[in-house]
Amino acid sequence: MKTGKVVALSGGIGGAKLALGLDRVLAPGQLTIIANTGDDFRHLGLHISPDIDTLLYTLAGLDDPVRGWGRRDETWNFMQALGQIGGETWFQLGDGDLAIHVERTRRLAGGETLSEVTDGLRRRLGIASAIVPMSDDPVRTRVETDEGWLDFQHYFVRRRCEPRVRALEFAGAATARLAANALAALSDPALAAIIICPSNPYLSVDPIRAVPGLREALHAASAPVIAVSPIIAGQAVKGPTAKMMAELGLMPSAATVAEHYAGLIDVFVVDEADAETGVGGAEKRVGPTLMRNLDDKIGLARLVLGVTGWTV
Amino acid sequence: MKTGKVVALSGGIGGAKLALGLDRVLAPGQLTIIANTGDDFRHLGLHISPDIDTLLYTLAGLDDPVRGWGRRDETWNFMQALGQIGGETWFQLGDGDLAIHVERTRRLAGGETLSEVTDGLRRRLGIASAIVPMSDDPVRTRVETDEGWLDFQHYFVRRRCEPRVRALEFAGAATARLAANALAALSDPALAAIIICPSNPYLSVDPIRAVPGLREALHAASAPVIAVSPIIAGQAVKGPTAKMMAELGLMPSAATVAEHYAGLIDVFVVDEADAETGVGGAEKRVGPTLMRNLDDKIGLARLVLGVTGWTV
Repeated sequence: MKTGKVVALSGGIGGAKLALGLDRVLAPGQLTIIANTGDDFRHLGLHISPDIDTLLYTLAGLDDPVRGWGRRDETWNFMQALGQIGGETWFQLGDGDLAIHVERTRRLAGGETLSEVTDGLRRRLGIASAIVPMSDDPVRTRVETDEGWLDFQHYFVRRRCEPRVRALEFAGAATARLAANALAALSDPALAAIIICPSNPYLSVDPIRAVPGLREALHAASAPVIAVSPIIAGQAVKGPTAKMMAELGLMPSAATVAEHYAGLIDVFVVDEADAETGVGGAEKRVGPTLMRNLDDKIGLARLVLGVTGWTV
Repeated sequence: MKTGKVVALSGGIGGAKLALGLDRVLAPGQLTIIANTGDDFRHLGLHISPDIDTLLYTLAGLDDPVRGWGRRDETWNFMQALGQIGGETWFQLGDGDLAIHVERTRRLAGGETLSEVTDGLRRRLGIASAIVPMSDDPVRTRVETDEGWLDFQHYFVRRRCEPRVRALEFAGAATARLAANALAALSDPALAAIIICPSNPYLSVDPIRAVPGLREALHAASAPVIAVSPIIAGQAVKGPTAKMMAELGLMPSAATVAEHYAGLIDVFVVDEADAETGVGGAEKRVGPTLMRNLDDKIGLARLVLGVTGWTV
C-alpha cells in the first residue's frame, strides 16, 4: 500500500469504469479525476457536461447499468411533454438527470465556476474522489465530416456517429486555462501515478491534452503516465472509437493508440488479447482490461496501480 | 347564438374553470383569455408563468383533476434528484410540467415575446381559444406581510399564505405595456362581452387592471363587463381570497368584491347562496357558480354569456 496521490484523465463511459475502480481501491482524497469537457454543450438553455455527469453518476452508484448512460430508475416524462409542445427531443434528458443540468446552469449563471459546481455536486453525492473539469473555460469539440463541420453532440447523438469523420478540432482550447485544481493535482509532490483511462483518445483524451499547460504538467510530473488501451483486439468496447480511427485512415488497434500517445506515456496497458502488440517506446503491461462488472473495474485499477509498485 | 367576440380576464385555477367552460361553448376564435402574469417568476433559472400554464393545461385537458394544479399523470423524479444535490425544492415542478418552463425560457432567451411563446404553446396543445399574457413586460406581484415584503410565490407557495397580508404591489406595472393582442381583442368592434372570471380580485385581477391602458380599453369597449364572484357565501372556493380579505380589513363577501369592481363592471354574477346580496351599482345576476365538473363550467359559461342575450 502506498499513500501517494493519483490523477486520472477520463472521458465518459469507458473512462468512468476505471475511475470507479480507482475510487474503490484508493483512500478518500487520493484520487483526482480530470474530466473532458469538450463534449459539453448548451441545449434547451441548459449547460450539459456529459462526461462529468457520467463520472458523477458512476461514482455515486446512480448510473444505469443496463442502458449504459444516464441515471438508473430514470423516467422520461419531460421528454414526452417537450415533444408534445414541439421542443427539440433528439438529445434524451431523463427526468432525474435534468436536475443536475438545471442546478449546474443556475449556479454557473450565479457566477460559480464549473470546478466549484462540480465539486459541490460530487460532495453532495457522497463521492470521495475529486472530479475536476479540465478547464473552467469553454472548450468545444467539433467534428469535420463528409457532411461538413458538426458540433460534437450533433455528430455523436443527433447523427449517431454516422457521418464519416475527417478531422477534429477543440474550439477554445488554445485560450482555455487548465483548471486550478487540475494543475494543483498534477503538481502535487505526492503524485505517484497519472492514469489515462481507456477513453476515446481522439474525442475524450485529446481535448484534455489540448488545454495549454496540461502537457507541460504531465511532463513536469515525476510520476509515471500510464495509459490503458480503449481498443481490444481491434475493437472498441463501446462507442465510435474504432469506426472513427478507420475513417481517419488509422488502423484500429492498441498499437495505433500507443503510437498516438508516444512521448506522453511511460506505460501502456493492453488486454491479454493484444499481448503481442507493439507499444512504441512505452513499457507494455498486459492484463484483463474488459470491465463488465465492479470486480473487473477494481481488478484493472489494481493492475494499473501495480505498475508503480503499489499493492492495493 | 351570437357570433361576436369574447374577452375573459383570468388568473389561475378558479378563472381557468370558467375559461374552459367558455372555450367549450364558443366557436374556435371567438374567445381571447387575458392571463395574469403577476404571479410569474424566475426559479432555478426558468421562467415560470403559473396562471398561463394553468390555463394551457386546463384548456388542453392536461390538468390534474385530483391535485387541482399541474399536469395529470405527473411524476416527480426531477424534484427528488434536485433535493439529492441540494437544490431548492420548495416550489414543486413535475417532470412533465418542466417541459413548458424549459421551452418557454429557451424561446424567451431567443428573443420571442411571452405573447408569441404562449400562442405557440396553446396552438401546439390544440387549444382553439387565444391565451394572451396581460403584458410582455415583467409585472411582479409582491405582498407586504407581517414578516415584511415577500415575492408572490414566496408568500403563496413557500410560506403557504400563512403570513398576514397588509398590502399588495405590482412591481413594474406602471411601465408595463398592455400586450398587443390583449389590446386588439379589447378593441375589436365585434367584441360582445368582457368577462372577469371568478379569480382572486386582489391577486389575479388587480395585476391585470394595473397595466396601463387596460382600464381605458375596458371603458372604451361597448361590450358589457361581467364579473363572476369568486366568493360564495363568504367563502373562497379555493385559495386564500377570503383569508386575505379579512387580513386587509374587508368582509369576505360577494358584496365586497362587487364594491371592489365598482365603476368597472356592468353586471355581477353571484351564486344562489348570495341571491340577496347587494352588488352596488352593477346589475345582479344569480345562478349556480360553483364549478365541480365540466357541466358546471359550461353551465356558468352559458349563464354569463346569457347576460348579453346569447343562447349557447
